[in-house]
Amino acid sequence: MSQDFIDPVFWQPLMYLKVGPILAAVAVSCTLTFMASVVQSADPLSSWNEGQTKQSILQFVAKVTTEGSPDFVPPAERLATFDNDGTLWCEQPVVQFVFVLDRLKHMIDQQPELRDKPAVAAALKGDMAYFEQEGEQAIAEVVYLTHAGMTVAEFDELAAEFFKTAKHPKYGVLLTETTYQPMRELLSYLRENGFKTYICSGGGIEFMRGVSQEIYGIPPEQVIGSAGVLEFREQNGKAVLVKTPKLLTFNDKQGKPAGIALHTGRVPIFAAGNVRTGGDIAMLTYCQSSPHPSLQLLVNHDDAEREFAYAESDNRSLNAAREHNWTVVSIKDDWTQIFAK
Amino acid sequence: MSQDFIDPVFWQPLMYLKVGPILAAVAVSCTLTFMASVVQSADPLSSWNEGQTKQSILQFVAKVTTEGSPDFVPPAERLATFDNDGTLWCEQPVVQFVFVLDRLKHMIDQQPELRDKPAVAAALKGDMAYFEQEGEQAIAEVVYLTHAGMTVAEFDELAAEFFKTAKHPKYGVLLTETTYQPMRELLSYLRENGFKTYICSGGGIEFMRGVSQEIYGIPPEQVIGSAGVLEFREQNGKAVLVKTPKLLTFNDKQGKPAGIALHTGRVPIFAAGNVRTGGDIAMLTYCQSSPHPSLQLLVNHDDAEREFAYAESDNRSLNAAREHNWTVVSIKDDWTQIFAK
Repeated sequence: MSQDFIDPVFWQPLMYLKVGPILAAVAVSCTLTFMASVVQSADPLSSWNEGQTKQSILQFVAKVTTEGSPDFVPPAERLATFDNDGTLWCEQPVVQFVFVLDRLKHMIDQQPELRDKPAVAAALKGDMAYFEQEGEQAIAEVVYLTHAGMTVAEFDELAAEFFKTAKHPKYGVLLTETTYQPMRELLSYLRENGFKTYICSGGGIEFMRGVSQEIYGIPPEQVIGSAGVLEFREQNGKAVLVKTPKLLTFNDKQGKPAGIALHTGRVPIFAAGNVRTGGDIAMLTYCQSSPHPSLQLLVNHDDAEREFAYAESDNRSLNAAREHNWTVVSIKDDWTQIFAK
Repeated sequence: MSQDFIDPVFWQPLMYLKVGPILAAVAVSCTLTFMASVVQSADPLSSWNEGQTKQSILQFVAKVTTEGSPDFVPPAERLATFDNDGTLWCEQPVVQFVFVLDRLKHMIDQQPELRDKPAVAAALKGDMAYFEQEGEQAIAEVVYLTHAGMTVAEFDELAAEFFKTAKHPKYGVLLTETTYQPMRELLSYLRENGFKTYICSGGGIEFMRGVSQEIYGIPPEQVIGSAGVLEFREQNGKAVLVKTPKLLTFNDKQGKPAGIALHTGRVPIFAAGNVRTGGDIAMLTYCQSSPHPSLQLLVNHDDAEREFAYAESDNRSLNAAREHNWTVVSIKDDWTQIFAK
């Protein structure tokens, strides 16, 4: 497993919260695109601009679904894996981090002494310098505090409550409404063509499962994410699984191919990730190792006006895309609409 | 995770190999029942005798699939989990142990020095006393020697080769032919009624995935088993996953509910296990914690004439079945035919 089991970039997005004017522009843009989306179209990818990216997707799907073609892939082997943060929904801020903060605030009402923990105090203040200095242990402390020591069913309830009301700090819409419309169309399009669609994300597996069916049409058994060790217990004669503060799998970077193999026993023929931390390079590389024809998408956040523009300091993901001939999705050029509604 | 991560009972079945006359009787019985199976029937569970057990299954499935009934369960939540060894196929001897021995023999041809390892020498001699004395470490040594240090794809090829030719030491048929006909009918019947069928076994996840589709109609992504840590590497510019000698999950006893939760995020409404080690008690208890109506089956190996008769020294599984009102399947009384052909 990777050493950096909870990545500091989990936290960096908070800094974007300061970028007020850009976000106001996005909110206006959202309203306009929502109105446009009322117009129905027979195009399965109607929120994608015509161009090379859209053509790559359409041609790939046509190729692997044409019976008798040498490129035909049997439906059972048409696996598609999607990163979540920054690929399927907005990662500014990272949704699961908003949940951590929300939980901490609730917990402090009951246990005010938690404020005495430096990591908790730093999180509540948004003091990123503290976490950069203290590293993984400090991050793990607030994550486990809010995610462990309860049963899976109890956690599911907390997450469900959160998703019912939690809003994007700047857009003002529910966090579940900050999914990308073009990617939702892509998920549906692939499923209509016999693909089995999976999430494969560094996010917590139970956290994502709480909303994956509702917002992406992906059932819980097709969600792969970071997972803690679950402990089986009998409480009052009833079986429960307790979430422990012990990491089982960190499903990011090299952990993604391992997670896909563990959960599916297959190599996907389609995979989509995004630029930010290099977290999807291994998954896209793994996808490309399929003996079948395969397609890799890398979403580039290059639209400061309608969404966000962010890059990697070392440009690793885009360099890998060039080297391996992956299809780069430019949000600015390829998407007519950003958010689903 | 459980302390006894490779159970000594993995090995005990070898002792059954001495029981020649019983096995000869089974072989004759197999032939006769094969002839009987040619007669087609509209009964979806035609290899099950009429009686309480069969009725429990039929009534349960009718109940949860009747729309409008208070017991109706939506198809998405109709999850059924089956243990493998002793529940879906014969565990005398444990098939994966036959594979270990087969691999050791092949490996010794290339690396005769392996004979100098006491654990290898003991395994080849069938010296169970050695493993009882040396414990888990010795067992782990031969398991890892034969299962790790290669890519997943390489292992899959070895397992596929093994299954093509490996025969049951006494029946003389392929090991893949020692699956239970009544359980295969049950798997099909559940799937026809909208259930998603899973294997949930202590066996190695990749090992079972090699044959699960062919012999049970269960695709690899619906196989849950014990898993080692996989290491992502790039070899000659191609992504591979290497099987390391490090245990990630031991999917037996309390590990089974945790494995089901990890892989599916759901609680099954149907689960089937068997008597031998108490390995399925936690899974059946977990199944019964479902808020929906649920059914638990426990296969009792009580047919010394047609298969094997074995019990637990402490009778734990049967006691649990009585306490929790699980349905006990008597091979002797409930099955008209044992093996599929």
